[in-house]
Amino acid sequence: MAHVTKSRFRVRYAETDQMGVVYYANYLVWMEVGRTDFCRDCGFNYHDLEKNEQAFIAVAEASCRYLSPARYDDEIIVETQMSRLTKRILEFSYKIRTASANLAEGKTVHVVIGPDGKFRSLPARYLELLSKM
Amino acid sequence: MAHVTKSRFRVRYAETDQMGVVYYANYLVWMEVGRTDFCRDCGFNYHDLEKNEQAFIAVAEASCRYLSPARYDDEIIVETQMSRLTKRILEFSYKIRTASANLAEGKTVHVVIGPDGKFRSLPARYLELLSKM
Amino acid sequence: MAHVTKSRFRVRYAETDQMGVVYYANYLVWMEVGRTDFCRDCGFNYHDLEKNEQAFIAVAEASCRYLSPARYDDEIIVETQMSRLTKRILEFSYKIRTASANLAEGKTVHVVIGPDGKFRSLPARYLELLSKM
Amino acid sequence: MAHVTKSRFRVRYAETDQMGVVYYANYLVWMEVGRTDFCRDCGFNYHDLEKNEQAFIAVAEASCRYLSPARYDDEIIVETQMSRLTKRILEFSYKIRTASANLAEGKTVHVVIGPDGKFRSLPARYLELLSKM
Repeated sequence: MAHVTKSRFRVRYAETDQMGVVYYANYLVWMEVGRTDFCRDCGFNYHDLEKNEQAFIAVAEASCRYLSPARYDDEIIVETQMSRLTKRILEFSYKIRTASANLAEGKTVHVVIGPDGKFRSLPARYLELLSKM
Repeated sequence: MAHVTKSRFRVRYAETDQMGVVYYANYLVWMEVGRTDFCRDCGFNYHDLEKNEQAFIAVAEASCRYLSPARYDDEIIVETQMSRLTKRILEFSYKIRTASANLAEGKTVHVVIGPDGKFRSLPARYLELLSKM
Repeated sequence: MAHVTKSRFRVRYAETDQMGVVYYANYLVWMEVGRTDFCRDCGFNYHDLEKNEQAFIAVAEASCRYLSPARYDDEIIVETQMSRLTKRILEFSYKIRTASANLAEGKTVHVVIGPDGKFRSLPARYLELLSKM
Repeated sequence: MAHVTKSRFRVRYAETDQMGVVYYANYLVWMEVGRTDFCRDCGFNYHDLEKNEQAFIAVAEASCRYLSPARYDDEIIVETQMSRLTKRILEFSYKIRTASANLAEGKTVHVVIGPDGKFRSLPARYLELLSKM
């Protein structure tokens, strides 16, 4: 079974829109919060990957299905897991929910690039850390 | 041939991230700029739909493929067209580009809801306006 | 001594800009996180004030002095306290810091308005709850 | 008389909050749009300053007085002018309005820093370009 990282935070007023619910682009921000916590669970800080290895995890694809609206001050739980991992491609899957309702499901696909913007492989140490989960 | 609305604006500093390119969630904000302009081209203001008809166009699905990064102060062109239209479902497709490069392609699927959050049909007048394009 | 509410969260990647630090407008979002938590400490949810009393706390002034940059994944502490409270005016003061550095100081001044956008007084129950702190 | 740069754009749905008006932090984003356009009027791209000179204009202070709310799809005009200029300090003043109403007034104070985060002087060429306005 794949490891699932749970991130928890409350909806910010800034994240709502005039429909009275969370604006749809913010779910992608929440997925990134999930990814950051997932990396931490794997034993590294995503920032170190950027700083020490000059490897950047760029987003190639993102998608989200919205099931039920999130509202101001709701306590959000993002469940993040890795659904695919190769030297060159990382895919994360997300469930975004409250304690009582599923709000959204999403997926992001990532490629590894260098500071020049060209594709490269994920450094072996990080591939190993991610594989263990 | 379906009508294509072109929206133009420059990348804001706020939209960049520490990778030096536009943060991925902002492409969904740009798609919404495209939708607003598309409605204007159809002869109505999306706000009037909300205010006068109590009909809200909620996002059910969103997806984006990222092809090439956008950078600060780039002049962005969003090409928006309607790829599906029924009384209950609206689907928009987007090409996001600069004058010289394709940056991203996306799609959003929408449903119409009332102020109670329940599904309803798009008011006839608006369905007609959107169909003409 | 006035009550100080401490809010804690980590810097999101979305909050950084191409200078490699947190974009300056996000500090105002963080102040709002502080205000929300301050209200909770006082025994009410800001949302209830909006929903039950039709009273909205609008921002009349905001200011921030930036002392040291915040970076991705930093653990941020927002210290919020009420620096002025009357029936019509609320003023909050903020210190934004990490465990080791002061990042920013800010202030927001608020007025109470009704759903019509006109000034009104803060409902007595909420004035009392805020005064106790 | 100081030069005034006028920036024009429409309010995005993403910029509204559940109060039905523009969220207060977004006014600082709009000020930055004004600064970018002001630099362009002066004959340079702010990005070139960063890239060619390794000089970054960091925000030291920001303030805003909110007079009247901005709403979705309003056409916003930001009037930006330089209210102070020395080798080390830049201060911009802003009026944010629609065609018919003043929405906000603001000010930002900036210092020049190098890639190491230390204070430096504004490169002579840019000081000259800004002084001419």
